[in-house]
Amino acid sequence: MELDFYKKFSINIDLAVEAHDLLRGQTGREISGVIVDREKYENSSVTIVKIVEEQAEQLMGKPRGNYITIEAPSLRDNNRLAQQEVAEVLAKKLSSLFNLPENANILLVGLGNWNATPDALGPKVIEHSMVTRHLFKYAPEELGEGMRSVSAIAPGVLGITGIETAEIIKGIVEKIQPELVIVVDSLAAGSVDRIATTIQIADTGINPGSGIGNQRTGINLASMGVPVIAIGIPTVVHAAVIAQVTVEHFLEQLKANPLLNQIYQNLRPDFTNQVINQVLQPFAGNLMVTPKEIDSLISSTSKIVAGGISMALHPAVNFEDFNIYLN
Amino acid sequence: MELDFYKKFSINIDLAVEAHDLLRGQTGREISGVIVDREKYENSSVTIVKIVEEQAEQLMGKPRGNYITIEAPSLRDNNRLAQQEVAEVLAKKLSSLFNLPENANILLVGLGNWNATPDALGPKVIEHSMVTRHLFKYAPEELGEGMRSVSAIAPGVLGITGIETAEIIKGIVEKIQPELVIVVDSLAAGSVDRIATTIQIADTGINPGSGIGNQRTGINLASMGVPVIAIGIPTVVHAAVIAQVTVEHFLEQLKANPLLNQIYQNLRPDFTNQVINQVLQPFAGNLMVTPKEIDSLISSTSKIVAGGISMALHPAVNFEDFNIYLN
Amino acid sequence: MELDFYKKFSINIDLAVEAHDLLRGQTGREISGVIVDREKYENSSVTIVKIVEEQAEQLMGKPRGNYITIEAPSLRDNNRLAQQEVAEVLAKKLSSLFNLPENANILLVGLGNWNATPDALGPKVIEHSMVTRHLFKYAPEELGEGMRSVSAIAPGVLGITGIETAEIIKGIVEKIQPELVIVVDSLAAGSVDRIATTIQIADTGINPGSGIGNQRTGINLASMGVPVIAIGIPTVVHAAVIAQVTVEHFLEQLKANPLLNQIYQNLRPDFTNQVINQVLQPFAGNLMVTPKEIDSLISSTSKIVAGGISMALHPAVNFEDFNIYLN
Amino acid sequence: MELDFYKKFSINIDLAVEAHDLLRGQTGREISGVIVDREKYENSSVTIVKIVEEQAEQLMGKPRGNYITIEAPSLRDNNRLAQQEVAEVLAKKLSSLFNLPENANILLVGLGNWNATPDALGPKVIEHSMVTRHLFKYAPEELGEGMRSVSAIAPGVLGITGIETAEIIKGIVEKIQPELVIVVDSLAAGSVDRIATTIQIADTGINPGSGIGNQRTGINLASMGVPVIAIGIPTVVHAAVIAQVTVEHFLEQLKANPLLNQIYQNLRPDFTNQVINQVLQPFAGNLMVTPKEIDSLISSTSKIVAGGISMALHPAVNFEDFNIYLN
Repeated sequence: MELDFYKKFSINIDLAVEAHDLLRGQTGREISGVIVDREKYENSSVTIVKIVEEQAEQLMGKPRGNYITIEAPSLRDNNRLAQQEVAEVLAKKLSSLFNLPENANILLVGLGNWNATPDALGPKVIEHSMVTRHLFKYAPEELGEGMRSVSAIAPGVLGITGIETAEIIKGIVEKIQPELVIVVDSLAAGSVDRIATTIQIADTGINPGSGIGNQRTGINLASMGVPVIAIGIPTVVHAAVIAQVTVEHFLEQLKANPLLNQIYQNLRPDFTNQVINQVLQPFAGNLMVTPKEIDSLISSTSKIVAGGISMALHPAVNFEDFNIYLN
Repeated sequence: MELDFYKKFSINIDLAVEAHDLLRGQTGREISGVIVDREKYENSSVTIVKIVEEQAEQLMGKPRGNYITIEAPSLRDNNRLAQQEVAEVLAKKLSSLFNLPENANILLVGLGNWNATPDALGPKVIEHSMVTRHLFKYAPEELGEGMRSVSAIAPGVLGITGIETAEIIKGIVEKIQPELVIVVDSLAAGSVDRIATTIQIADTGINPGSGIGNQRTGINLASMGVPVIAIGIPTVVHAAVIAQVTVEHFLEQLKANPLLNQIYQNLRPDFTNQVINQVLQPFAGNLMVTPKEIDSLISSTSKIVAGGISMALHPAVNFEDFNIYLN
Repeated sequence: MELDFYKKFSINIDLAVEAHDLLRGQTGREISGVIVDREKYENSSVTIVKIVEEQAEQLMGKPRGNYITIEAPSLRDNNRLAQQEVAEVLAKKLSSLFNLPENANILLVGLGNWNATPDALGPKVIEHSMVTRHLFKYAPEELGEGMRSVSAIAPGVLGITGIETAEIIKGIVEKIQPELVIVVDSLAAGSVDRIATTIQIADTGINPGSGIGNQRTGINLASMGVPVIAIGIPTVVHAAVIAQVTVEHFLEQLKANPLLNQIYQNLRPDFTNQVINQVLQPFAGNLMVTPKEIDSLISSTSKIVAGGISMALHPAVNFEDFNIYLN
Repeated sequence: MELDFYKKFSINIDLAVEAHDLLRGQTGREISGVIVDREKYENSSVTIVKIVEEQAEQLMGKPRGNYITIEAPSLRDNNRLAQQEVAEVLAKKLSSLFNLPENANILLVGLGNWNATPDALGPKVIEHSMVTRHLFKYAPEELGEGMRSVSAIAPGVLGITGIETAEIIKGIVEKIQPELVIVVDSLAAGSVDRIATTIQIADTGINPGSGIGNQRTGINLASMGVPVIAIGIPTVVHAAVIAQVTVEHFLEQLKANPLLNQIYQNLRPDFTNQVINQVLQPFAGNLMVTPKEIDSLISSTSKIVAGGISMALHPAVNFEDFNIYLN
């Protein structure tokens, strides 16, 4: 699929790893200014995409920084070992992106709309996270060693509050002055097998156009004045992407046939988009593809992410502790 | 799109009006044994498909009976006048399918899974319906003239209860012996513009393979021993249908070109399905397309349907009364 | 407190152990026809009240049978060890009340109203229970050894369905013919310290007047035709009981004073009830006392009960397995 | 009941009208520095308590300002006419407390915990309110004349966020600079007949100790820098109050008897509190009394309050418009 397609349908490529793969597929060579590393675990694999140069920002459509992607297909099968491994890898990778003293304050933000299942992941992560900031003041006896001060908010979406989410968060940041903000959001992926099996951690925060809710303003170091790490999990694929991918697969076939190749060249530019537009009327960009079991996928994924965050922020907490806390 | 496609992906065509249109499109002529009538209202239109002969049952993939479809695109815009009109047309059309004394007992059944938004329509209709059966016994003073005895249940789905829904309902029917059962269910449509804008009323009940949850056994006169009317509202489109429709639109173009037509003939049978299978891996038939705002569409549609049913069953109740009851 | 008080305010004494203590307190001696046994565990204690003679039924206001009460005050503190112990004691005690072959069918029923927090315990237990009946037919490969066929339903309450709950359950029992029915319900206790810390298991089922929802008809061997075990957990105390207990404590003081004792004798019969009636106007018997944190107490208790039931019914399942299943 | 009792159990008297009545009852005369006015409507009555002098602040335990109480017992019966009247009276009385240009910005805040039914009123009012601030920027065509810019947030409670609610709101206020903040909260009342039938509007905002959640810091003009109006609705009564009122009624009787009066004098100070403490162990101040039907009372009341607020803020909106908006 070409980047142009995404622009035409105003679809943001939320995952850096997908943007990278698209770009490489299109150009057939490495992208200058982007460094890619890979790690392999038992039930999961990690890809680290570092955008290090300015012209790569343009190409990738993402600001310079680190984009760590954890992929674990067996999360979809509710594999308990995979869940623990992913929570622990998430904790480790998240920790690698910050360097905070033990008395640091961290603000968690769950973006998204709790009334719309695939967009509710952020608020659900907040619900399961170990919030401690108030205990330091009102119940220090409940805190052990190795617990940091963590606060959390799920501010809702523009249509509910009438306020840009970035404004709400900025207001709270200015009041409580955390050393770090971690923002959790639902993403749209380019392929359905990523739904609830991929986690992206980015130290560039949230930038305009990201997430299912399509944030209009950035939630990042520039806008907040403190470092912002974004954790995103694909929960949907745009229906337009499904349609497009289908056509792409189809066209591949035509292309292979020398006779058809010429027709293929003529057909392409506009026709595909027209077709997709027709099929998706009257909802256009607002149609989402999700598996039937999205509710239970969101429920289990939000616990894994909350676990990973809690372990990263509270050095004293391990996976077992977190599970006890959950129940 | 051809019927074969649906069979290959085990997708049931829930709407008789769509089965009819597909069949006519394919054969290019009227279907023998099927009578179609149309009515036009200010904000909605009604299509009545009567399957009257045995061989038409086979062709249509649906048992003989009446299938009334109300279509009102402006429901999607939360148009208050359209909502009232549709509730009233639904009440009228539903009433046309039964002939009950004022002291009849009616059992409402809301099929579907309350934990999965697009499948929660049935349970939500139950929640909003005017249930009165207990008042006849325990609080007759709360009942006015023109109220029938209505009971209601949302039994949940097989994965939650471990019991076939038809068994649960049959058990209750044998206990309380209603004169009529009305079953409400979420459906899958063949095109996204039907989501939350189309209502089908069928006096054939629910037959195996219908509904998002894909009922395994029928809930109909034969299995229940009393007449069963099914009310279904599309809330999703299978992702495979989106992919298929895209390809179909695409192929139309090829077909028009005499040179390509031959290749088109060779390409077709298997290739399309392979492509679709690839794109939808690993979820295959379980991927659903819904608009982002499905939660609020389910919420408003369930009130309209509950209103229409309540007006049909309780002659004394009008739309205003129902709205007062709701708030 | 005297039994008369409960009758005057139509308050049922749901816990046999409380009925027994009241009776003993009133008469000052053992109750003939009732046998009481006690067991002590690390974090909990068990009292077994056996009503064995007919005249004891009258006195206790409960049918002959076994009433096992598990008490564990530390459940209120979310003590993980207590939770596991109580789930295991519940499993053991529940198992002691039935003798079923491995291929037996068991139906779980969660009574109560999911819209009213303190009454939602039954439906929540159903939500967390390991339901397997459908797997025997459709996915036997997902079942290990030592799993029984378990189905489950939360039928809702009379005000929602218009149908007596006993009728719904009887209908389902006749269809699926389980060897045992286990019914879970919220109870009202006589003292607030029992809320979410006491579990009663009774092999007499549910009898008219029991539970917060005040069942009108029995769900027991007589009505269902199969053995019924009821598991009940106090989630509220009637406000009238709070008022009454306050007065009782107060009157104790008067009684101790010889001068006042006479006035006390005169005061008593009606005056107390009048006062209580005045204070609780206009809600009378419908006022409930719950701790602020009732939502989280219901959430944790429902998991313990679902765990205990799942371990009792599926011999292969232990507490660790159940927790994996939960997350 | 005496004020002392409330202090002993750390129970705040949330309603000015109750504080006033207690004080008058105790002293037997008008309270200097407090002006009381009354209005009578068909289904409701209004009491306006103005605290105008400094020493009255001390006596009343509330800062100087206007406390308007609307009482409508028939709200409990879901009386449609009463609901409309109360929404309209609320709109009128609320409007009387501010004087804003049509282009003013107003921030609504729903205090309380959405997971605890009686404390969820604030968040529910937010859910039903007509939020428009974003439309001015992104969809001005959806706005008619006579609509003000309204934004809304339900920030959650300290135990969920780890942040004092006042800090969150202050942060948002500094960002979006509203001309007025309206805060909605659940209150505790001194008698059960006030539950869901009384609305208090106070131009003094929320002051420490108010509300079920017992706000620790004020949300008022002093802390926010803009005027704050608080709308509070009793949804619970402390169990300690029920116990106390019972004893008070009881003691009245003793008092009337000259012989007993002396004993009464001796008994009183500590004994009553000891008794109450015993009865309410181990929950003490955390036990709440609510009617069984609290869920539906919260649901209907939150719509009335949201309606009243929406009519007050948007001059173009009447009760009918609001109901259309709701459905």
